[in-house]
Amino acid sequence: MPDSDIPTVLKPFPIVVRIPVQWSEMDAYGHVNNTVLFRYFESARITYLERCGFLESYDTNRIGAILHSTECRFRQPLHHPDEVLVGARATSVNDDRFTHSYTVFSQESAQVAAVGSAIVVSFDYEKRATTPIPVSVRDGIARLERAAEGSAIDAR
Amino acid sequence: MPDSDIPTVLKPFPIVVRIPVQWSEMDAYGHVNNTVLFRYFESARITYLERCGFLESYDTNRIGAILHSTECRFRQPLHHPDEVLVGARATSVNDDRFTHSYTVFSQESAQVAAVGSAIVVSFDYEKRATTPIPVSVRDGIARLERAAEGSAIDAR
Amino acid sequence: MPDSDIPTVLKPFPIVVRIPVQWSEMDAYGHVNNTVLFRYFESARITYLERCGFLESYDTNRIGAILHSTECRFRQPLHHPDEVLVGARATSVNDDRFTHSYTVFSQESAQVAAVGSAIVVSFDYEKRATTPIPVSVRDGIARLERAAEGSAIDAR
Amino acid sequence: MPDSDIPTVLKPFPIVVRIPVQWSEMDAYGHVNNTVLFRYFESARITYLERCGFLESYDTNRIGAILHSTECRFRQPLHHPDEVLVGARATSVNDDRFTHSYTVFSQESAQVAAVGSAIVVSFDYEKRATTPIPVSVRDGIARLERAAEGSAIDAR
Repeated sequence: MPDSDIPTVLKPFPIVVRIPVQWSEMDAYGHVNNTVLFRYFESARITYLERCGFLESYDTNRIGAILHSTECRFRQPLHHPDEVLVGARATSVNDDRFTHSYTVFSQESAQVAAVGSAIVVSFDYEKRATTPIPVSVRDGIARLERAAEGSAIDAR
Repeated sequence: MPDSDIPTVLKPFPIVVRIPVQWSEMDAYGHVNNTVLFRYFESARITYLERCGFLESYDTNRIGAILHSTECRFRQPLHHPDEVLVGARATSVNDDRFTHSYTVFSQESAQVAAVGSAIVVSFDYEKRATTPIPVSVRDGIARLERAAEGSAIDAR
Repeated sequence: MPDSDIPTVLKPFPIVVRIPVQWSEMDAYGHVNNTVLFRYFESARITYLERCGFLESYDTNRIGAILHSTECRFRQPLHHPDEVLVGARATSVNDDRFTHSYTVFSQESAQVAAVGSAIVVSFDYEKRATTPIPVSVRDGIARLERAAEGSAIDAR
Repeated sequence: MPDSDIPTVLKPFPIVVRIPVQWSEMDAYGHVNNTVLFRYFESARITYLERCGFLESYDTNRIGAILHSTECRFRQPLHHPDEVLVGARATSVNDDRFTHSYTVFSQESAQVAAVGSAIVVSFDYEKRATTPIPVSVRDGIARLERAAEGSAIDAR
């Protein structure tokens, strides 16, 4: 996807993933069920965690990310067929956690369908306790956020 | 389920639904995926909307509930096999919306696995606009909340 | 659940699990989506694999079950609210695989909603190859099937 | 997607949809859960039903498609990240039903991950009974199958 095709609202997001809306994601009200939006968030979050080195950190020294909390504000119902673009970016980074901001953009309506956020905590899976974000991950986040502007857009 | 079996933390909730954890609800980390908690919330919410008359209101005059936003704070990972009790109660009721509070209790660990909330808006599906909560629904909510203490517990 | 409450059609099944139908399992046609029936099968299958010792076999010597294929015949649409009883039994046991038969019974309609089957293969996860069903598992299956008549009914 | 990029195995399929594998589709075994393959089938089926006129037939005269049965043979486990191509074609068309054949192709492994089929029945939703496939739909199916060779490929 060329940069020029990224909607303006997603330009500040270093990670933008593209997800086709599946027919079975709609519920009995005929629009995409609210829980699916959290799945969209998760897909963008996982790609972000891959790119900033947090998945690798878990594999090498068992310090990984854990989800503390998440929330979503629904703006427009989504329907099949459609394709959404889901942006993820870090809006604040603290010692042992950071906040993710998400935006779901409907290509069909050319509007924002939902916005949300999550608090992601750095967790030592050996010691079963929160722990400072590893330096390599902190650098990865900084690198991603500097690049921003959807430059890491990804179809997965 | 006799009242005496309801955990103390769920006593203030007029609606408590029982849901067995399904094996396939666990993700690659081996615990129940975060999006499933929102499905648990929804199951309690739908039962609440049935009992307070909001589903009937939609059927008779197209004034129904619409989800404005929702959030979840994860406290303890859930695993199969387990059975959760999910409580829903209204914590504030305004002119055209009310706030729901949810608690997910794990029978296996005898602990709270997650807490959350949602803002539910009264919506006129004909006029496509928010509208005051119908009087009958407002009464239904008041009746449920007075009863409280898990008295409307339901296995579905 | 007392034996007397088990519907006749499920009496030949050694494993019967009880699952409440969740509202969000319904799709845009207003009935439970076809993929959910396979989740119901899986829940009964996993309980069966636990009881016959196949999950333990995987944990102790990495010989576990793998799903070769599965199929479902839909008989009656399901809706929320309802609670289904899902039976699983082995209908044939060969050297390195067995066939499972499933029946999903709707408590609301007191009718069979779907029937299906699966071929489950014994797999050596170290050698990445099929392998004979371990003797302990073979005995576990025989024990379960002898007992049958829903005697191992389980609410999860 | 240019025709030249369609894998040979999918060339006989008039409908090929592209679906990115979502991280949360993996279960506790670390690969895509079996029920998700049926969702992939459904996404291809719905696109097929749109293109052959069966969705429109339901909207105009309440004669629509209903799923009789479906089955899947799993060949290779799928993982995130990956993108699958899912083909659907009609392999036999009878008076009141047709058989769909599906193939799920992993772009990551360049191999077939699963094959399956479904029997789709023509149903009069007013009379609650099976009914001959409408002529317009029968023509739509014939048109699609003549074109074949992935010419109707679709990213949704």
